[in-house]
Amino acid sequence: MYRTNTCGELRLADAGKKVTLAGWVQKARKLGGMTFIDLRDRYGITQLVTEDDPGVGREWVIQITGEVVERQSKNPKMPTGDIEVKIEKVNVLNKAQTPPFTIEENSDGGEDLRAKYRYLDLRRAPLQRALALRHRLAQEIRTYLDQQGFMEIETPYLIKSTPEGARDFVVPSRMNPGTFYALPQSPQTFKQLLMVAGYDRYFQIVRCFRDEDLRADRQPEFTQIDCEMSFVEQEDVLNTFEGMMRQMFKNALGVEIANPIPRMSWYDAMDKYGSDKPDIRFGMEIHEVSELVKGCGFSVFDGSEYIGAIAATGCAEYTRKQIDELTEWVKRPQVGAKGLVYIKYNSDGSVKSSVDKFYTPEQVKAVAEAAGAKEGDLVLIMCGPKRKTQTQLGVLRIEMGNRLGYRDPSVFAPLWIVDFPLLEWSEEDQRFYAMHHPFTAPKPEHEQWFYSDRKEDLERVCANAYDFVLNGTELGGGSIRIHEAQMQSRMFDVLGISKEDAEYKFGFIINAFKFGAPPHGGLAFGFDRVCALFGGQETIRDYIAFPKNNQGRDVMIDSPSKIDQVQMDELFLASTVKE
Amino acid sequence: MYRTNTCGELRLADAGKKVTLAGWVQKARKLGGMTFIDLRDRYGITQLVTEDDPGVGREWVIQITGEVVERQSKNPKMPTGDIEVKIEKVNVLNKAQTPPFTIEENSDGGEDLRAKYRYLDLRRAPLQRALALRHRLAQEIRTYLDQQGFMEIETPYLIKSTPEGARDFVVPSRMNPGTFYALPQSPQTFKQLLMVAGYDRYFQIVRCFRDEDLRADRQPEFTQIDCEMSFVEQEDVLNTFEGMMRQMFKNALGVEIANPIPRMSWYDAMDKYGSDKPDIRFGMEIHEVSELVKGCGFSVFDGSEYIGAIAATGCAEYTRKQIDELTEWVKRPQVGAKGLVYIKYNSDGSVKSSVDKFYTPEQVKAVAEAAGAKEGDLVLIMCGPKRKTQTQLGVLRIEMGNRLGYRDPSVFAPLWIVDFPLLEWSEEDQRFYAMHHPFTAPKPEHEQWFYSDRKEDLERVCANAYDFVLNGTELGGGSIRIHEAQMQSRMFDVLGISKEDAEYKFGFIINAFKFGAPPHGGLAFGFDRVCALFGGQETIRDYIAFPKNNQGRDVMIDSPSKIDQVQMDELFLASTVKE
Repeated sequence: MYRTNTCGELRLADAGKKVTLAGWVQKARKLGGMTFIDLRDRYGITQLVTEDDPGVGREWVIQITGEVVERQSKNPKMPTGDIEVKIEKVNVLNKAQTPPFTIEENSDGGEDLRAKYRYLDLRRAPLQRALALRHRLAQEIRTYLDQQGFMEIETPYLIKSTPEGARDFVVPSRMNPGTFYALPQSPQTFKQLLMVAGYDRYFQIVRCFRDEDLRADRQPEFTQIDCEMSFVEQEDVLNTFEGMMRQMFKNALGVEIANPIPRMSWYDAMDKYGSDKPDIRFGMEIHEVSELVKGCGFSVFDGSEYIGAIAATGCAEYTRKQIDELTEWVKRPQVGAKGLVYIKYNSDGSVKSSVDKFYTPEQVKAVAEAAGAKEGDLVLIMCGPKRKTQTQLGVLRIEMGNRLGYRDPSVFAPLWIVDFPLLEWSEEDQRFYAMHHPFTAPKPEHEQWFYSDRKEDLERVCANAYDFVLNGTELGGGSIRIHEAQMQSRMFDVLGISKEDAEYKFGFIINAFKFGAPPHGGLAFGFDRVCALFGGQETIRDYIAFPKNNQGRDVMIDSPSKIDQVQMDELFLASTVKE
Repeated sequence: MYRTNTCGELRLADAGKKVTLAGWVQKARKLGGMTFIDLRDRYGITQLVTEDDPGVGREWVIQITGEVVERQSKNPKMPTGDIEVKIEKVNVLNKAQTPPFTIEENSDGGEDLRAKYRYLDLRRAPLQRALALRHRLAQEIRTYLDQQGFMEIETPYLIKSTPEGARDFVVPSRMNPGTFYALPQSPQTFKQLLMVAGYDRYFQIVRCFRDEDLRADRQPEFTQIDCEMSFVEQEDVLNTFEGMMRQMFKNALGVEIANPIPRMSWYDAMDKYGSDKPDIRFGMEIHEVSELVKGCGFSVFDGSEYIGAIAATGCAEYTRKQIDELTEWVKRPQVGAKGLVYIKYNSDGSVKSSVDKFYTPEQVKAVAEAAGAKEGDLVLIMCGPKRKTQTQLGVLRIEMGNRLGYRDPSVFAPLWIVDFPLLEWSEEDQRFYAMHHPFTAPKPEHEQWFYSDRKEDLERVCANAYDFVLNGTELGGGSIRIHEAQMQSRMFDVLGISKEDAEYKFGFIINAFKFGAPPHGGLAFGFDRVCALFGGQETIRDYIAFPKNNQGRDVMIDSPSKIDQVQMDELFLASTVKE
């Protein structure tokens, strides 16, 4: 061992001890004939002092021996701030080139440069904290699930291309020319097979792969906490994973979350928050005001299916310019609203709106109050098709929440969304899609609709499906699954998946269900995002040791890259890229 | 929840309780007007009894309610054998087709059939025990390493094709046409970068991939316990992982292994056991007898570089036929020996050998005693080039160990092999290969030879490399790494890897080493094999939930398979397979 102690552990009680430390030179400075060196490792920073300048540079790796002494001027911000080590001997273990950016809490390096030198960026304290939190959370998850009788079972990565959902990454097989494995988008079918196989409670912290065009903060490979249980109903699943989340918050962050975690139906979430992943750290709920504003001669409202409003606390003083800016903001394609009607509910009790000529002040006031506004608030109104308008109001609500500072990352407001519709009709494709996935069961009480051929019936079938939402982000979701072969066939019918296609792609699972599948259900959490949100961040990149950029590239190792012709030939592949 | 209790937990103390159980029908039989059903789940089997035959078949999934009653004829072999449950209500949750083979401790199904219906094979108790052991071991590993300050850090699966070692599986990139990711053969470079990044102690239980022609008991994807530590010497690494193994044996099996675990140099292992992974559960060591047998006119010995012998305990009574059979056995291509000379050291003290005409009885006896034989033993002698002959004797030794019942799978004899040669000369390629891998450091005291240009010098360089061996199987290995850019360049030179090639393939890690790499080292264990050996088995397939067959196929999901032309086009790929 190159050291007797780490750079994070020496205290005043150690004064007088002779120690050996090893680590990186954070900085070295001269002061009054002395040289002070901050020596850094994963565990902390310790100040070294010597009369002879050892001539070491930033990020050199050194080993020193010396005596722990009490500091003259203590640093209460550092855990080791009461002491320093008087160097007796320095051993340079490795010199270092000057890093291309500063290794500090906040670096001066740009994103691309830091990505290229990820191994240097990873030395910075925020990333070390992020990965330490990730490790801690993974341990907590495993400990909890192990205690609950779950078995971690590894499922294969070289599997079979399946439809539904995103594109698969594929892996050409050299031993089976002309054929390909696929990398799993999730272990969904395998975990269901494990239930058929009687494993009762399964989990895995597992990598998943999706070959999607990458939007911001998506990764082609990501990690999932994947779980499945047999002989359970929805209530059992929710309770089990509520317990897991509670333990994670408590043990990793020292935070007590709501008990029980509130539950909200998908319909309520859409109506009140315009989102299936509402941020309930703040109110500002959406209220439908259609009844109050229709039939008064304002043709925009009169011709709308739905009119809804939110009340932005204390914003009655917004200037014309601010409101215009907000109107432009909702008209951007990302939101896609046609316009924005406002009501200022002034602190003197008077009202002022952009549609004053169609309504009496009493009518306007009634709308403001229906929107939940009090004196001093600004009411923002949008109209159009119901779900679309609610969604736009939901986006505006989040924006106002940000502007008003309601979205404190150190406050944690978890929520279960339940009672999802089973199916989603696509006008474009004129077919149903599974809202969760094609293995989700309809609620038993809705089964008669599920076997109906009428579109309206199918649309109102709900699933025993659930999402776990935290601070406006969906962290996970799952469902009670179909466990009968006949119901699974019906599902494929409803989704327009032909018998042949179903047989080709899911034959093994349809078949497996014929040999005694237990009732089962489960869920999966996006672990990268869990880590980021627990860390109070919105982006996942700092919580992944070696992430890829928005083009799916790892710029540090310069991948993907070309492979040589020999390898192409062995795989029986030719490139069709025109050079 | 569909049950109040599992099928494994009811005891006599529960008699009188009303319970609900759910599970699979193991078997149902009628006896004296009663129907007895064995109900099975992951936790055990409970006997149910009813006067009304519920008409359920093998592997049906049922839920029953009833009263726990004391059994008339108890079954002491079953943990629940003191009780049975008197059925009051049966609820068939799912019918089942009759499975194609029996779901018993030993199935009547052939290997291929069981592979196709893996989800049914996985219901059998031996596989349930295997996967439960695997889960337990994984938990023990994580708990131990967490306590030792290791962080589990996930490294990417979509990386870059690298040379050395086996063929990579590759993944075409749709977003970067004409380029490929590679799946990792191990996270070797990433774990070293994590050391450069200051993470100090890293581990991961991680999938690795090798596109090799599959020998028996190899899998294209396999799981590794991957570990790395900074500021350590070989002694620290060995102590840390010796502790891990000790805890795994104790907590998962209740077994206390040798403390400390013995260590043996690679040279001693080859000389004494003819193997770099000796099974030390038994002796029967190899002894060189060249000095004793050369120069007596037996030309086969006289012309051999090396003559070695083992003594098979109590085999002096072997018949001529048995010895002939053994001679044929060593002549098979798998062993490749030219022949076998024997000495019977009879229980009356006399000797009889196949080369009696060249030696006096005293000479023969001296050879037998040099081989460690006592009266009643059979001495087996082989000759030829030294290492080759030792290896053949090693294979024969293992065979004799099997025949003599010396290889009890419930006895655990771990061993560290140390002091490996750094390099291995290939006569065929006329170049050196790295014995471990190109990142392994030479022993500091051998550095002058490492920088020499003489082949003899390079051949005697030892590495601070080590293997963990259990019962004749290598379970893991590792080394102290090179941490200086200059030494790494020298290594590439010695291995004949050009500067351009090294730069293209390892540029990022060579570069990383310039920014302050700490001294570091680590190791990796093959987790599948660890599980199998802990379970007392030689083959890993039962310890992997969904393994592939010897053609790399998953016959259950029928993968790999063809993908459609659209997907090929999107990936800019064409197949060159002739239909």
